[in-house]
Amino acid sequence: MNFKISKRIFYNALQTVARAISPNSPLPALSGIKIEVDQESITLTGSDADTSICKTLNSTDEDLHLFVKETGSIILESRYILEIVRKIDAEDVEIEIIDGSLTRISGYQAEFKINGMRGNDYPSIDFSKPNVQFTMDSALLSKIITQTIFATSDKEIRPVLTGVNFKATGNRLECVATDSYRLAKKIVTLENELNFNITIPSKSLSEVLKVLDEKEEVAIALNDKKVQFYVGDTIIQNRLIDGAYPETGRLIPTDFDYVLDIDSSSLLSAIDRASFIKNEGISIIKLSMDENEVIISSKSQEVGSCTETLVPQSYKGPHLDISFSGKYVYDAIRALGESDVTISFSGEMKPFIIKSEKDDSILQLILPVRTYN
Amino acid sequence: MNFKISKRIFYNALQTVARAISPNSPLPALSGIKIEVDQESITLTGSDADTSICKTLNSTDEDLHLFVKETGSIILESRYILEIVRKIDAEDVEIEIIDGSLTRISGYQAEFKINGMRGNDYPSIDFSKPNVQFTMDSALLSKIITQTIFATSDKEIRPVLTGVNFKATGNRLECVATDSYRLAKKIVTLENELNFNITIPSKSLSEVLKVLDEKEEVAIALNDKKVQFYVGDTIIQNRLIDGAYPETGRLIPTDFDYVLDIDSSSLLSAIDRASFIKNEGISIIKLSMDENEVIISSKSQEVGSCTETLVPQSYKGPHLDISFSGKYVYDAIRALGESDVTISFSGEMKPFIIKSEKDDSILQLILPVRTYN
Repeated sequence: MNFKISKRIFYNALQTVARAISPNSPLPALSGIKIEVDQESITLTGSDADTSICKTLNSTDEDLHLFVKETGSIILESRYILEIVRKIDAEDVEIEIIDGSLTRISGYQAEFKINGMRGNDYPSIDFSKPNVQFTMDSALLSKIITQTIFATSDKEIRPVLTGVNFKATGNRLECVATDSYRLAKKIVTLENELNFNITIPSKSLSEVLKVLDEKEEVAIALNDKKVQFYVGDTIIQNRLIDGAYPETGRLIPTDFDYVLDIDSSSLLSAIDRASFIKNEGISIIKLSMDENEVIISSKSQEVGSCTETLVPQSYKGPHLDISFSGKYVYDAIRALGESDVTISFSGEMKPFIIKSEKDDSILQLILPVRTYN
Repeated sequence: MNFKISKRIFYNALQTVARAISPNSPLPALSGIKIEVDQESITLTGSDADTSICKTLNSTDEDLHLFVKETGSIILESRYILEIVRKIDAEDVEIEIIDGSLTRISGYQAEFKINGMRGNDYPSIDFSKPNVQFTMDSALLSKIITQTIFATSDKEIRPVLTGVNFKATGNRLECVATDSYRLAKKIVTLENELNFNITIPSKSLSEVLKVLDEKEEVAIALNDKKVQFYVGDTIIQNRLIDGAYPETGRLIPTDFDYVLDIDSSSLLSAIDRASFIKNEGISIIKLSMDENEVIISSKSQEVGSCTETLVPQSYKGPHLDISFSGKYVYDAIRALGESDVTISFSGEMKPFIIKSEKDDSILQLILPVRTYN
């Protein structure tokens, strides 16, 4: 293996595939990036066995300056190759296997020789394309992920809740995340009629988010074991979470006795201020509402208390006191990303929902906690 | 106590005095900021018993909007008062003791009540001004600190080496830091003739650095127990380190058989690149020099090797191989802050010095390590 390539493009590609790599992989080869070179292209692969990212750079891109003297493959420790290529002060870098797996990386006056592993020692990763296929606007996929991912569970007790569930029935794609104290649900329309029900790990989705380029369409391919996202010349492949995702439809109330319309940014700022008072690390915020005012308060025996009064845009219903995790409501309103929100309640101890009139596709549900005085 | 004050100025002042505070002070009062209010001014104090910072805001500053309804004093937990004042969304904040030590902080629609401690419970800190006094340009003090502080020791075995020694003899002020593997020495001229020999903890000096305002003169006052820096309306007072500072003059060689003049930024970049190869966390760099070229290299059994060739501006002497900590030489050249450096060697295992022709006031000395091949 012996080739020359644009430092900048090669470095960006290394960074992309390195996202899949766990720093302390039990399998030594997986702490490295696999580099495969043929006459016309170079392919980089990074993986932690659950998430695999593969990127192909093609010599048809003139900016790539790809010049292959000899084809071949090698595995180089990701943190070493990243640091070397980042630090090389030259437009192009040269990479050459000089002896077994000893690899020379050079640019301008600097020359590095590092020990790699033979390309054949990399575990075989099946990147074959599954049958269920559709495309989606990058911006829409990005929105689905950011509006739901924060509501996934970080506890491994129920693994299925650590992912976002994607369920397609005909043209309708329902994306749900819940940690059983809150729930986010996004509904979008697919171009084709499809039928699937998969749960994608939140960790993988946050990697997808980083690789997404808002300008491009994303092709998605899946079966019941894995899902692939094709973003430009990058493939991100994720293993799915096993197990049936809970039915969440019946949890969402439809009748409300109290409805609050309020300016998002005032409410977010007030919750942020009140959240500084924590009880055992958690900020419990109380809302006291009637037609004239919304009082936001929090208190703790140790620290003290905090009160703030906002004027609602409108409030329908009798007086209501309700308490909840400040962080959950804050996350939910931020995820909507709209200037106004509507919060609909059914009672002091019933789940409530947060929506925006401006975007009907997304709903946030939160369980309250008991109000103490 | 009851007063109103500009949120912005009050917040900045709180941040300044909070720098002295240790988050987990054994003395509860010292985890707080003491606020003392009289008719014309407000004084804030933060301390960890070794470093104390005191700032007085005077009503003569119109931007301060200081309006005192009632004088008094209180101690408020620093992280609470900082977070509250930062989050208040109003031009001015109001602070009032409402019951014992329960304090109300309010601005616009938000109101916080937090439990404080009575002002009298704050330990008494003696801010009286010692007799040895002089002034110095802020920019010069800042340069003294940044050019020496990194060479102090971080090990508590010899406490005196954890500080920077300031020794005045007549008009000459010698500032020395060493961890016994490297040494930084800065010599400046004082306006007055003075005689003192004190060692200031590096931690305190890094706080002084953060508070310095390049535009102002700094007044310095000291005795054999403490030193005070007067920066505008802020006093930073530090306890000195006990014990005699070692005589370092005789450690600095004066005869050199090998002298290298080289461009700083090329050498820094090359050391940075070569430093990525570490042996047990330390980067050992080897220089091989003659009149035509300087070869910078490093290697480790596990990772591999790295080589780079630079052209010196000039080199006098026979061929020399010498090895050293990449970090030490990097820090030293950076601290000089000049475009060219002169490195003078006496032999493979003798300390060498790094200086710049452009600034004779500062010298960096480094001990080499044995070269292995």
